[in-house]
Amino acid sequence: MSHERIHIRDVEHEGRTVDILTEGNRIAYLGEPLQQEAGLQICGKGKVVIPGLINLHNHAAMTLLRGCGDDMPLMQWLEKRIWPIEEHLTHDDVYWGAKLACIEMIRSGTTTFVDGYHHMPATANAVRETGMRAVLSCACFDHFDASEAETSKARIARLHAETDLACGRIAYAVAPHAIYTVSGATLQWINNYAAANNILIQLHLAETESEVAFSLKHFGCSPVRYLHSLGILSPRLLIAHGLYVDDEELALMADYGVSVSHNPASNMKLASGYAFRFVEMQRAGIRVGIGTDGCSSSNNLDMIEAMKLASLLGKAWRKDPEVLSAANVFAAATSQGADILGLPTGRIAEGCLADLVLIDVNQPAFTPNHNFVSNLVYAANGSCVDTVICNGRILMQNRTIEGEAEVIRRVSQCAERLMAFSK
Amino acid sequence: MSHERIHIRDVEHEGRTVDILTEGNRIAYLGEPLQQEAGLQICGKGKVVIPGLINLHNHAAMTLLRGCGDDMPLMQWLEKRIWPIEEHLTHDDVYWGAKLACIEMIRSGTTTFVDGYHHMPATANAVRETGMRAVLSCACFDHFDASEAETSKARIARLHAETDLACGRIAYAVAPHAIYTVSGATLQWINNYAAANNILIQLHLAETESEVAFSLKHFGCSPVRYLHSLGILSPRLLIAHGLYVDDEELALMADYGVSVSHNPASNMKLASGYAFRFVEMQRAGIRVGIGTDGCSSSNNLDMIEAMKLASLLGKAWRKDPEVLSAANVFAAATSQGADILGLPTGRIAEGCLADLVLIDVNQPAFTPNHNFVSNLVYAANGSCVDTVICNGRILMQNRTIEGEAEVIRRVSQCAERLMAFSK
Repeated sequence: MSHERIHIRDVEHEGRTVDILTEGNRIAYLGEPLQQEAGLQICGKGKVVIPGLINLHNHAAMTLLRGCGDDMPLMQWLEKRIWPIEEHLTHDDVYWGAKLACIEMIRSGTTTFVDGYHHMPATANAVRETGMRAVLSCACFDHFDASEAETSKARIARLHAETDLACGRIAYAVAPHAIYTVSGATLQWINNYAAANNILIQLHLAETESEVAFSLKHFGCSPVRYLHSLGILSPRLLIAHGLYVDDEELALMADYGVSVSHNPASNMKLASGYAFRFVEMQRAGIRVGIGTDGCSSSNNLDMIEAMKLASLLGKAWRKDPEVLSAANVFAAATSQGADILGLPTGRIAEGCLADLVLIDVNQPAFTPNHNFVSNLVYAANGSCVDTVICNGRILMQNRTIEGEAEVIRRVSQCAERLMAFSK
Repeated sequence: MSHERIHIRDVEHEGRTVDILTEGNRIAYLGEPLQQEAGLQICGKGKVVIPGLINLHNHAAMTLLRGCGDDMPLMQWLEKRIWPIEEHLTHDDVYWGAKLACIEMIRSGTTTFVDGYHHMPATANAVRETGMRAVLSCACFDHFDASEAETSKARIARLHAETDLACGRIAYAVAPHAIYTVSGATLQWINNYAAANNILIQLHLAETESEVAFSLKHFGCSPVRYLHSLGILSPRLLIAHGLYVDDEELALMADYGVSVSHNPASNMKLASGYAFRFVEMQRAGIRVGIGTDGCSSSNNLDMIEAMKLASLLGKAWRKDPEVLSAANVFAAATSQGADILGLPTGRIAEGCLADLVLIDVNQPAFTPNHNFVSNLVYAANGSCVDTVICNGRILMQNRTIEGEAEVIRRVSQCAERLMAFSK
C-alpha cells in the first residue's frame, strides 16, 4: 500500500500543542501548528501523541489459547493443554490468531512487536496485512537430538530466505526456545548464523527456578554463565524474562551488551517469580524493555497494562515506591525497546519512523491531567487509544479497525476446533 | 427517581441465554427467554450479565489528586502533597471529585462502594445523583487529643442524623483512620456507637511495617491484638489492607467475624507490602473482598483491574499459580463483598437487588470465549462494560453517561486550584 502524507493538527506533545507531518514512512515535521493543510487531516484536539509502544516478547497466535489452562502449574499446563493443542495447529489457525493479536495490539497502542511461534509465515502474513511492524523469529528446538538440530537449522535458513523483508516492516530473527530444549551446539550455530546475517536472537532465559536447577545440574553453572561459556553473549541477544540472575551475571550481560524483555504479567500469572532486577539492570547499563508474552499466559497484549504491572511489581517486592517511575517504564516500552531492536522508532522526532499513537484524554483516567505519563501508566489502559499510525499509515482511527468482526468470528471457529485436542 | 421495570432479553448468564426482569429495585425474574415484552427493553445479545462489582475500599473524591505525588515515599507524599491540599478542600471540590469517581466506577462495572473521606455529605450528593449504592463513612481522627476526640464524636452523630438513608442506596458507617491517629478510647466509643446503631466500622489496619512497629512500641502488641485488647473485633469491623497479620491474628479475626478489604494496587504502588494472606484468610473463614483505594494511590477505580492484580500478586509472591483463580477473585469482588456489607446484591437471582452489569464480549479480550470469567479477570479491563443497572435503574447504556463531559470539566478546574497548595 502506498504511503500517505498525514497531517496531525493541534495535538498535544510533551505539554505543548504541535502539528506533525508524516512523509512516506517517516516523521517529516514536528513543530508549531501550520497555517495550511498539508496532507490527510487528523484532528489532534483533546488528544496527546505518544510513540507507538513496543512489545518485546510475544507469541501472537496464542490468542487462540486465551483462557485455556489458567491457574495451573507450568508443566501440567504445557503437557495437558498447550502442547496437545499446538500439535494440531495449522497455518490458517496461526494466521487468524496472529491477526487477532495484531488487532488487539493496535487497539492498545502497540505498533512494533517481537514474536516467536510455529508457522511463522502465517504470522508474517497477518503483520503484512494489518500494517504493524514486527521482528518475527523462527522458533527452534532440538531437544538435544542431532537430527532434529539439522532439521531446525535448515528451517531457520529456509524461512529466512522466504521472509518478505521488502515490505520494510518485518525483520527476521531466530528464537531458540530455551537452554533446556536446545543444545549448546545448536545455540552456537544460531549465534554464528545471527552474527553473519546481523539479526537478533531471542531466548527464554532464567525464567524459573527449575530452569536454573537444570542448568546447574547439566551444565555445572547458572544460565547466563552457561551462555557465556558457549560464547554467545552479545548485543544481538535479547533475553526474555531473566528473573534469576545474580550480580556477576548482570555484569556479564552488561559487558556483552545483552538486552532483556521484562514480562511481568506472565511471570506473575505463571508464578515463575517476581523479583525482576529491573533497577539493577538499568544501573549496570543493560537495556530493558517490556513485553506481554503470549495470551495463553498473560492473558492479553495490552502494553499499557504491562507498564503498570512492571512499575507496581518492581515497587512492591523492593518495598520502595520511588523506583520504576511512570516515566521510566514508559521509556522502557518506547525508546528503550526501539534501541534494543535497532529501529529508529519509539520516539517522536523528525526523521524517526512515523509510528504514532493518539491518546484520547477526555475521560476519567486522564482527569485531572497534570501528569500525562502518570495517568497513562497508572490510571489508563489500552482503551484510551484513539488513533494508531504505523510506518506512515493509519491502522486505526476513532477506535475502528476494518475487518475486526470477521477476525473475531474466524478465531472463535479455529479455537473451538483446537480446544477438542486439549486433554 | 421512580423505578422502571427493565426487561433484559437474550443475555448470557453462566453459559445459557436468559431473560432478566427487574421490578422496583429487585430482580423479579431470571429464566427462559420470554415471548412478550415486559418492561423497558434492553437487548442482551452478544453480552454477558454479571452482578455489579463491589469496591470495598475507596476515597472517591481523591480523583481530584490523581497523579499528584506518584513515586514518592508514603510520609513525604502525605506531608508534601496530600495533606496540604486536603486542608483546602471544599464541599464543592469533594462533590465534583466524588461525581467523577462514580462515573469512573459505573464505567468499569462497579455499582456499590465503601467510602471514607472529608465532606462526606458532598459524596452522598454525588452518590444520590449518579444512582450508585454506597456505604459512606464519616472519617474520624483524634490524634490522641481529648478535645479533638469530642469534636469527632459529635461529627459522627451529626452526620449520621443528616445522612439521607431514605433513598435506599446509602448506608452510614464510621471510618476511624488508623490506630496511630485515633486513640483506643475513641475506637471503643466508635465500636459502641456502631453496635448500638448496627452500622459498619472501616479502619486502615496492618497496612505498613511502620504501623506494626508503632503498635508494638506504643501498645506493646501487634495491630490485631491491640484491637482485640480494646474489645472491638466484631463482624461490624471491616479492615482495609491487613497486610501484616500472623497466624494467631488470623485466628482472632476469624473467631470474631472480622472482614477484610484487599487493595492490591494501592499496596503495590505505595510499596506497603505484597504478601497479602488472601488464601490463609479464606481458609480460616475470614471474608475477604477487594477494593481499589483512592485514586491518589491506586490510581484508578477499575475493579476488573483490581481483580487481576489480586490474583496475579497472590500467585507471584507465593510462587503458586493454582491459588486465587479467576473465579475466586470474581466471587470476592461480588458475592463476598455483598456478604461483608450485609446487602442482598453481588449475585444474580430472583429477589436480589437489581445491580447488573452487561459485558460486551464481541472484542479481542473475550476471543475465544471458552472461559468467560477468566477472560473478564485476566484479559479484560473496565472498558468491556456496556450497560450498568443499579437498584433497578439504568446508570449507563452503550457506554454513555449523561453529563460526563461537564463533570470532567469541573474536576479539572477544582484540581487546578487545589494543585497550587501542593508544596
